[in-house]
Amino acid sequence: MSELEQPRENVQAHLKEVQDLLRRQSLVESLVHRQEMPRHDLVEDLVHRQHVAELSHKLDELHPADIAYILEALPVDERLFVWDLVKAERDGDILLEVSDAVRESLIETMAHDELKAAAEQLDADELADLAPDLPDAVMEDVYLSLDVEERAQLRAAMSYPEGTVGALMDFDMVTVREDVRLEVVLRYLRRFAELPDHTDKLYVTDRNDAVRGVLSLGRMLVCDPEALVSDIMDDDPLMLRPDDKAEDAATAFERYDLVSAPVVSSDDRLIGRVTVAAVVDHIREESEAELLNQVGLREEEDIFAPVLDSVRNRWAWLAVNLVTAFIASRVIGVFEGAIEKLVALAALMPIVAGIGGNSGNQTITMIVRAMAVGQIGHESGKRLLKKEVGVALINGLVWGGLLGVMAWWLYDNAELGVVMTLATTLNLLLAASMGVIIPTAMQRLGRDPALGASVMITACTDSGGFFIFLGLASLFLL
Amino acid sequence: MSELEQPRENVQAHLKEVQDLLRRQSLVESLVHRQEMPRHDLVEDLVHRQHVAELSHKLDELHPADIAYILEALPVDERLFVWDLVKAERDGDILLEVSDAVRESLIETMAHDELKAAAEQLDADELADLAPDLPDAVMEDVYLSLDVEERAQLRAAMSYPEGTVGALMDFDMVTVREDVRLEVVLRYLRRFAELPDHTDKLYVTDRNDAVRGVLSLGRMLVCDPEALVSDIMDDDPLMLRPDDKAEDAATAFERYDLVSAPVVSSDDRLIGRVTVAAVVDHIREESEAELLNQVGLREEEDIFAPVLDSVRNRWAWLAVNLVTAFIASRVIGVFEGAIEKLVALAALMPIVAGIGGNSGNQTITMIVRAMAVGQIGHESGKRLLKKEVGVALINGLVWGGLLGVMAWWLYDNAELGVVMTLATTLNLLLAASMGVIIPTAMQRLGRDPALGASVMITACTDSGGFFIFLGLASLFLL
Repeated sequence: MSELEQPRENVQAHLKEVQDLLRRQSLVESLVHRQEMPRHDLVEDLVHRQHVAELSHKLDELHPADIAYILEALPVDERLFVWDLVKAERDGDILLEVSDAVRESLIETMAHDELKAAAEQLDADELADLAPDLPDAVMEDVYLSLDVEERAQLRAAMSYPEGTVGALMDFDMVTVREDVRLEVVLRYLRRFAELPDHTDKLYVTDRNDAVRGVLSLGRMLVCDPEALVSDIMDDDPLMLRPDDKAEDAATAFERYDLVSAPVVSSDDRLIGRVTVAAVVDHIREESEAELLNQVGLREEEDIFAPVLDSVRNRWAWLAVNLVTAFIASRVIGVFEGAIEKLVALAALMPIVAGIGGNSGNQTITMIVRAMAVGQIGHESGKRLLKKEVGVALINGLVWGGLLGVMAWWLYDNAELGVVMTLATTLNLLLAASMGVIIPTAMQRLGRDPALGASVMITACTDSGGFFIFLGLASLFLL
Repeated sequence: MSELEQPRENVQAHLKEVQDLLRRQSLVESLVHRQEMPRHDLVEDLVHRQHVAELSHKLDELHPADIAYILEALPVDERLFVWDLVKAERDGDILLEVSDAVRESLIETMAHDELKAAAEQLDADELADLAPDLPDAVMEDVYLSLDVEERAQLRAAMSYPEGTVGALMDFDMVTVREDVRLEVVLRYLRRFAELPDHTDKLYVTDRNDAVRGVLSLGRMLVCDPEALVSDIMDDDPLMLRPDDKAEDAATAFERYDLVSAPVVSSDDRLIGRVTVAAVVDHIREESEAELLNQVGLREEEDIFAPVLDSVRNRWAWLAVNLVTAFIASRVIGVFEGAIEKLVALAALMPIVAGIGGNSGNQTITMIVRAMAVGQIGHESGKRLLKKEVGVALINGLVWGGLLGVMAWWLYDNAELGVVMTLATTLNLLLAASMGVIIPTAMQRLGRDPALGASVMITACTDSGGFFIFLGLASLFLL
């Protein structure tokens, strides 16, 4: 279905409509079930069939992406009911669109032949995306059904790991030679039934498939048909390599406003192209993953997944946090004597730890962001540390001062106020330093600085905050 | 500069090169400064001038987006030096590309006439983006220099608030009539010097500017030139309204893989278009804002901003957190008697609060995500709550049990272990319920459920955790 056949309706409205049909449906079903009156069977069967037909008709009208959306928003039983009603020849496209978790739930219910039929509708690059979720036996059968060129494309597409340009690329390029006139190209194009989606340019290659340039459709339309391709093509286009990082390609698309770009091998032969549609999907997925990883969710959850699947998805992060919380607890344990003598310490210590954690998370988020876009070099490190320490010092004196006054007023103990101010300031300084040092160190070690940044900084400011506050109190108050 | 004139070089390499030139530059400057030997002036002046020329030449070669990137990555003094070297006629494009914070720092240094000249190079939609950062006097002058159509476009572009389709749209549409043959359209297009960027389709309008359909370039190229536009156009394209949410437009582009889409008024007249380039920028900015807002940063910081600017950017969140931490502290204060009697409580209570906070943040992140894509309706709320409570119960029994055993072992107190397990489980249940209830309530109140979600859930699980644990301990242990 072409993008443009979509009416301006909202997918929310589609969802609502499907839900209404499902509800009427289940109403009938439960009626039949409750009454169990055989002589009503015929009438109810008719009503039932009418509703199913209506729903199935509704689904036929929808774009695969919209059906995917609806499947994700429905609880498992309703989801599978709807999935059964979808025409088999659309299964492949829809499986591509749904989230990983929901895809699994759908594939589980499909027979070998259904899966094979669905997979065979797809292009090689799409098949490669779906492959990890398909049973091996299905993939083998599908592979055998491909022709030589498609097999080569599938192998190529599957050989690049996720996060590379190779994993984003497709093979829908239209190529022309450079020594022909535009008029010939225009005649050649008229033999196509339609051009591949996102064809904003033709790729000009020589007989060895080496890219000589690109020719944009826009340029073709404004130039004299007598012109030679070589005269009007752009002979120095941006080209991607299949092992480039997907993120770098996304940045290039964003920076230079591209619609498609050629992917070439190390000897400059054209092997595929990346379209802005693949880039947009990549950007969305990445930003989603970033948000989820921040709270230790391994992947997007099917919100209607069984409880145990969800437990598994959230397990690792809770375990890590338990360990860091346990360490912080042992730090407090060391100072139990001090707390026994001055119980106010117990009430005040979480404030010191908390404000350090918040401030540290601000610093580390900002620095990880700047690193992600490559704006922090070796020299800027020191400068940044100095700046963050400055910010921490001001915040420490202001907020710490305020907290000190509050502690003084609450417990009528001026020294306690001074210790509070001092501890808050020191913990903010610790937070600022670790907020710069942790991601910088991770980057030098070749690790992703975003990974676990929030856990690490909070571990530092919790244990550190308790240690600083209770330590200072032991020194000066007892 | 066209997107395709970009060579396959990495922007990082450009940055490095500029930094090297700057360093050589400052070396010379400091030499001159240190020696202060007048007779060397001539030679050093030559070297200096050569370096500046080299740098300026390098900058001329770069895409505006790359220069913007370099400006953002340089400390303020070097940034302004480079900015002065950029050709004045490129100022406008570069100001559009840099981040808000850096844009401010650049505009501050520019004179009225420079700003006016820079602004006058821009299209109406670009000018509207820049307008909030320009001094009023400059905008007035620029407005007066526009022709009637441009003024109308500028007013239109500025009348839509950020976050709407109107704020994303531009006015670079090519329109044709439906009753002409393709051949005529092709001849018409050849009179253009070039088509606007991202022209993947022409807009078919009638004499009242009402949209009759769209005609994709790809379709034009494969169809018979004798065909009528009305026969081959798509007469039911996706159309946007200027007051649609930008986020909805982004979802439509992503879902239906669009390159451009028409924006129409309530009476279906064509007023602009949205391109995928604007959508990609929007998606990036949104996901960035989401990450920054999570830790209470109001906006992306210029990493080399003065300390006080940074303090201001982070102020509000720290204040809010201080209040919630203070409340939690007062909850502990209520139980000071209990802590005095059993000091182990002080060491264990942050664990109960901490694991609740982590688990609650996982729940709320997942639910806010699902809400953002509209997958949570009124009915799913109850179902989700049930599921999250189930997850919390399992986690509570497993992790809480483990913590209970540890508490028992550490303090040789079995009852303390039981209280620990019970408190952990209850706080996880609280976290799960609030993780569902807070965003649901926010949504029903018409608020953005993401805003402050993390602060609120942490406030609940901190104060709640302390209260549950210390309360149970007071009841059963003392």
